Amino acid sequence: MRILLTNDDGIYAPGLRALREELMTLGDVTVVAPAAEQSAAGHSVTLLVPLLIQEVFDDQKRFLGWAVEGRPADCVKLALLELLPEPPDLIVSGLNAGSNAGINVLYSGTVAAAIEGSFFRLTSIACSLGWSKGKPLDFRTGAAHSRKVIEQILKTKPTAGTLFNVNIPSLENGPVKGIRVLPQNVAPYVENFIRRVDPRGRTYFWLGNDFGCPEPHPDTDEIALRESYITVTPLQFDLTNHAALAGLQKHEWTL
Amino acid sequence: MRILLTNDDGIYAPGLRALREELMTLGDVTVVAPAAEQSAAGHSVTLLVPLLIQEVFDDQKRFLGWAVEGRPADCVKLALLELLPEPPDLIVSGLNAGSNAGINVLYSGTVAAAIEGSFFRLTSIACSLGWSKGKPLDFRTGAAHSRKVIEQILKTKPTAGTLFNVNIPSLENGPVKGIRVLPQNVAPYVENFIRRVDPRGRTYFWLGNDFGCPEPHPDTDEIALRESYITVTPLQFDLTNHAALAGLQKHEWTL
Repeated sequence: MRILLTNDDGIYAPGLRALREELMTLGDVTVVAPAAEQSAAGHSVTLLVPLLIQEVFDDQKRFLGWAVEGRPADCVKLALLELLPEPPDLIVSGLNAGSNAGINVLYSGTVAAAIEGSFFRLTSIACSLGWSKGKPLDFRTGAAHSRKVIEQILKTKPTAGTLFNVNIPSLENGPVKGIRVLPQNVAPYVENFIRRVDPRGRTYFWLGNDFGCPEPHPDTDEIALRESYITVTPLQFDLTNHAALAGLQKHEWTL
Repeated sequence: MRILLTNDDGIYAPGLRALREELMTLGDVTVVAPAAEQSAAGHSVTLLVPLLIQEVFDDQKRFLGWAVEGRPADCVKLALLELLPEPPDLIVSGLNAGSNAGINVLYSGTVAAAIEGSFFRLTSIACSLGWSKGKPLDFRTGAAHSRKVIEQILKTKPTAGTLFNVNIPSLENGPVKGIRVLPQNVAPYVENFIRRVDPRGRTYFWLGNDFGCPEPHPDTDEIALRESYITVTPLQFDLTNHAALAGLQKHEWTL
């Protein structure tokens, strides 16, 4: 099996290194990942400036892949259109430092890379590891869990282009209780900005780190992660509100 | 009516200026928009650096709003959480230079700003104007069309948080034929990279501009825009593949 591995934390991130070690037990892994951290890059792509690339090798001087001075989605596009000699059988994005659940999925560069893979009709899986404030992340255990989930996803024989979002709960809250297949939570987050004045007297704002989802919907990824379950959410990229379509079509629309 | 206007082309973009003039016939318009162009920013947000803001005035020295050194989605967050004295009745994003249809919706900063508004349970409308290569865009006509569509959307009495993607076809291909309510096209685009060598001998890639959607699905935004219809697509931000959920839940998942 040929696996393309990418992420949004950058090619030298410990989460990618740990996940690569695990994926190498499943097949040939080529990494095409951002040269620098791209957290919360969403599905941004680079149109107006060129993408520089560099070959990267691991500590054993084995070819790792390419670092791309661009976004996670750029990496997947470039890998599939230019860098890989043939299309991979699987695209994996991660292991991200921090979960990507609920509406945070929309901000996530990790998930965007997997969505981009799905645009190309390739099976794509985003993997993220929950974070507990002030505690170092156990990427090795998180990557081992991710590999087990990926193996089971492949056993379901997903059709081409199927897209999955896998979240490993924070490992600081006790042992993982199991794996649950659940929808994305769509309840709103509560966020705040810190307001300050810079040395030149200008007001600036900084998005606070204490955001939370006070009322998550039951039976969603957000809830299950808090209860220390691994979550698997099948995703798709049709943003059409199909439920609203027919009602709106009945209105008379005139120029 | 209080309207928040934003975009991804930057606060001084002609599309925003034209749309503001039209929206001022509907209510009080406050602009909170990126200081610089943010095309293809997707739903990226700024976490790791602060957001500087600046008050901006129009040519008649009337208060226009704030320029934000950030992403389109940052502008909406900051407007709603900090800058506006009370929540707007409507959020409009645009008028974008270039359509945002099909899977391009996922890359679009214009649409991401509207999605962000919808996260806050406010009615949000993204407006984009199709572009014909080498021809200047007629933002004035595009904005007038957008305003008419927005008025009709409001007449449907959308529930709080309802999200719309409006595309005006390229006005160079003949007169607009009408307005159609249609789903987002999800057929793939064909793209290419230009491969070159920089003055220091390094290979670089630049995403080509000749991408296209050779086989768009019938009765979608992509097709209707080519036929010179304005398209209205209701959107939502639940990426869950609900059709696949039940089947996956039946599998046995083990750690």
